[in-house]
Amino acid sequence: MNRQTLVSEIFRKKTFLCVGLDTEPDKIPSHLHQYDDPVFEFNRRIIDSTRDLCVAYKPNLAFYEAMGPNGWQTLAKTVEYIGDQHFIIADAKRGDIGNTSRKYAQAFFQQMNFDAVTVAPYMGEDSVTPFLDFAGKWVILLALTSNKGSDDFQRNIMQQPPGPLWENVMTQAQQWGTPENLMFVIGATHPEAFVRVREIAPESFLLVPGVGAQGGDLVSICRHGMTRECGLLVNASRSILYASQAEDFEEKARAEAMNMQQEMAALLHTLSV
Amino acid sequence: MNRQTLVSEIFRKKTFLCVGLDTEPDKIPSHLHQYDDPVFEFNRRIIDSTRDLCVAYKPNLAFYEAMGPNGWQTLAKTVEYIGDQHFIIADAKRGDIGNTSRKYAQAFFQQMNFDAVTVAPYMGEDSVTPFLDFAGKWVILLALTSNKGSDDFQRNIMQQPPGPLWENVMTQAQQWGTPENLMFVIGATHPEAFVRVREIAPESFLLVPGVGAQGGDLVSICRHGMTRECGLLVNASRSILYASQAEDFEEKARAEAMNMQQEMAALLHTLSV
Repeated sequence: MNRQTLVSEIFRKKTFLCVGLDTEPDKIPSHLHQYDDPVFEFNRRIIDSTRDLCVAYKPNLAFYEAMGPNGWQTLAKTVEYIGDQHFIIADAKRGDIGNTSRKYAQAFFQQMNFDAVTVAPYMGEDSVTPFLDFAGKWVILLALTSNKGSDDFQRNIMQQPPGPLWENVMTQAQQWGTPENLMFVIGATHPEAFVRVREIAPESFLLVPGVGAQGGDLVSICRHGMTRECGLLVNASRSILYASQAEDFEEKARAEAMNMQQEMAALLHTLSV
Repeated sequence: MNRQTLVSEIFRKKTFLCVGLDTEPDKIPSHLHQYDDPVFEFNRRIIDSTRDLCVAYKPNLAFYEAMGPNGWQTLAKTVEYIGDQHFIIADAKRGDIGNTSRKYAQAFFQQMNFDAVTVAPYMGEDSVTPFLDFAGKWVILLALTSNKGSDDFQRNIMQQPPGPLWENVMTQAQQWGTPENLMFVIGATHPEAFVRVREIAPESFLLVPGVGAQGGDLVSICRHGMTRECGLLVNASRSILYASQAEDFEEKARAEAMNMQQEMAALLHTLSV
């Protein structure tokens, strides 16, 4: 999905919600365990309950890898079921030397039909650019993540170029990609950082985790992070998937997603006023 | 495999070679394509040809993921075939928020029987420590990698703590793990860095990629990086796997591995003189 379509979908559906599919076999309602593939069955029902309320889905690779070889079958079925009307993110945090990153890109962009993959920047330019060689596909580069460990290295101040590491990552990476194929991860737990983010990357889309279970606040993020084209994909995973672990999980997940969508619709409305 | 056994194996077999299993379907000899799983058949023969010449194997996850869901079956069979007499590294470059890193650890340490996984440090302590919670298992943390992109961030000088980022990563990480469960990746393409590495981490094992196809030199690395317990695992992938792409690939792979083993035996001998 290209940028223009993504922006159109955001304004048509009045939402910039991304639903994270961090599905854990132990947390899905017990009545689904009668199915051959309970995780796929859970994902299918979550997708059907939220399709109209979100523009993106983000399966988290770790949860499928932890299921063993069958996990990749479940993941592939899930991506196929989502289809091409949503932006699909492989939350994989990959990144390796050039010939290896190219293989990861093949896995996500050719073997499966993901639109984007999250990439860790530690290994530098030649670990990131192989993902950018695939037409119509996106890199979502880690800049300032939502977890406590983001203090350990990302916010360390560098001498040359001056400033924190995460700003240096954003500045350099903009020479590798464009706002048409490169987004950044900025955690909702750092609302104060969005001012600086928009100075460095005024047009880029941001994938924002950390709202919900991790405590970030949507209004603060939008105040400083939203652009005329929205420029945000805000993720929620556990707060939607596990809103209920009983037979009513689909309705509760939908209600939680709708709460977020309605808040987002109001925030998008301010752009057109 | 614990540290004591690894050290014993190195001195018993007179080698600290790690064979990287970066197997590409397009590069394996054509006569293997008659098998149901040509990549497994190739790996099986490479393993049989090199077992006595190396102490570790390192499948590179990207190459198996690029094969689609069947790739994980091939990977699982390969790990099982290697068995428990070698140290087995999942070269996966993972790292995510705590609950996600825990799932990756389950994938590599419980679903499959890897001894170690390579981890990227960008997301900090809580992205690394979940891997260290598994008794008898190892993290191999990226510090200074072998690729050109290692100049982009890893070697940037920080104000506080002073020094390059990669040194800061090593210093902080030693508070998270011990030489019994934490190694570091230091690329052979930076031979001058091994002096500083040994000041920071005198006892830790290092996984050293970049010898062979990437141009690093074994003697230079050992001069500054070797400890009394060896402390090095030197990886070679393409130079062994693709020493020949004809029917004689097993003999040529063995010859290449034996060249390295003999050079390593001589370097280990200097420790006991």
